[in-house]
Amino acid sequence: MRYVRHGDTYVIRFEDDEVVPDRLLELLAAESVTAGSLTGIGALRSVRIAYFDTDRREYLDMQVDEQLEVLALVGNVAVYQDQPLVHAHVTLGRRDGTTLGGHLRWGIVRPTLEVYLRVIPGRVERAIDPEYGLPSLDLKDRR
Amino acid sequence: MRYVRHGDTYVIRFEDDEVVPDRLLELLAAESVTAGSLTGIGALRSVRIAYFDTDRREYLDMQVDEQLEVLALVGNVAVYQDQPLVHAHVTLGRRDGTTLGGHLRWGIVRPTLEVYLRVIPGRVERAIDPEYGLPSLDLKDRR
Amino acid sequence: MRYVRHGDTYVIRFEDDEVVPDRLLELLAAESVTAGSLTGIGALRSVRIAYFDTDRREYLDMQVDEQLEVLALVGNVAVYQDQPLVHAHVTLGRRDGTTLGGHLRWGIVRPTLEVYLRVIPGRVERAIDPEYGLPSLDLKDRR
Repeated sequence: MRYVRHGDTYVIRFEDDEVVPDRLLELLAAESVTAGSLTGIGALRSVRIAYFDTDRREYLDMQVDEQLEVLALVGNVAVYQDQPLVHAHVTLGRRDGTTLGGHLRWGIVRPTLEVYLRVIPGRVERAIDPEYGLPSLDLKDRR
Repeated sequence: MRYVRHGDTYVIRFEDDEVVPDRLLELLAAESVTAGSLTGIGALRSVRIAYFDTDRREYLDMQVDEQLEVLALVGNVAVYQDQPLVHAHVTLGRRDGTTLGGHLRWGIVRPTLEVYLRVIPGRVERAIDPEYGLPSLDLKDRR
Repeated sequence: MRYVRHGDTYVIRFEDDEVVPDRLLELLAAESVTAGSLTGIGALRSVRIAYFDTDRREYLDMQVDEQLEVLALVGNVAVYQDQPLVHAHVTLGRRDGTTLGGHLRWGIVRPTLEVYLRVIPGRVERAIDPEYGLPSLDLKDRR
């Protein structure tokens, strides 16, 4: 992973065999990022995505060991239990142009993934939502 | 819906049964947002998407009553007839990882939808495009 | 193509028969944009997408001559060989709501494509990656 910061934005390049979003946590910790928004494109050679079953309150995981284009990585950064947490969803393209996607558990990059992370001033927290048991954005103002 | 503003960004959390993008219009009106760009991820329990038939100049709507991951919500905010208007497209993930998507008419959130709305200074307007009858971005400079 | 700049953001509207991302290069050159991040939604009447075959180190192209919704255009701007280069991936929606996508070679707009390009201060360069032969983000700091 290589990165550079310009203004409020980290331009990040993942390389062969690096794991997203885990690898990103190092940057977030080192740079003390406590809120942000990100998008990315690139490709993965293996991925684990998940679908949240709201009735059973659990994620159903699916692993795909196949070279896939990352058509859209969309996510955000918040703080959960004093650590940065990346929540990201991914849309993936197969060799024949068809797509699949879900909540991103992990992806192994090949050959590159380009992530643009915009830092948001301040701190956004997550806390467990008692209804579903998920670490949800803990925003104080309800409208 | 809960939200907080940090810098130029609204971090917004939709909760069970809230309707997107309608619910967002309240925030936009209350906060006088006249231009912006947004991305989001989360999940919906029901959605109506549309495909624009350019020959017939009309949208074909499709309703899907199924729990779906929001893989990518991408959209923008402009002013149309003196009211804020959200134009958004959505990519959705099914239980089996396959995807569908279209122009977002409405979606009913379950259990959460996380939207990051970046406010753009100034005002962007929409006006009806005479060729297609759609409220299109009304930008003065043609290049 | 019409566009306006507000703050760090170009709001861009492509119109019938304009080609993306080629047409965007004129704006980037005229406005001396050397780094940026973009998202877009709209529709195309024809598109060429590509999938990178990592073993053969070459792109497999696929052309689709069909009216398609642009569900998510995600990309970035960097400088390669002293010229601006747009790297973008696209997720597309068909009439029946199913999707396809890949690396965007070119798309012909119909009736509109709305692109929000956020300029990043500074300059981001690309250079050929010797392993894959792709113009990759040339970021100095490895972590």
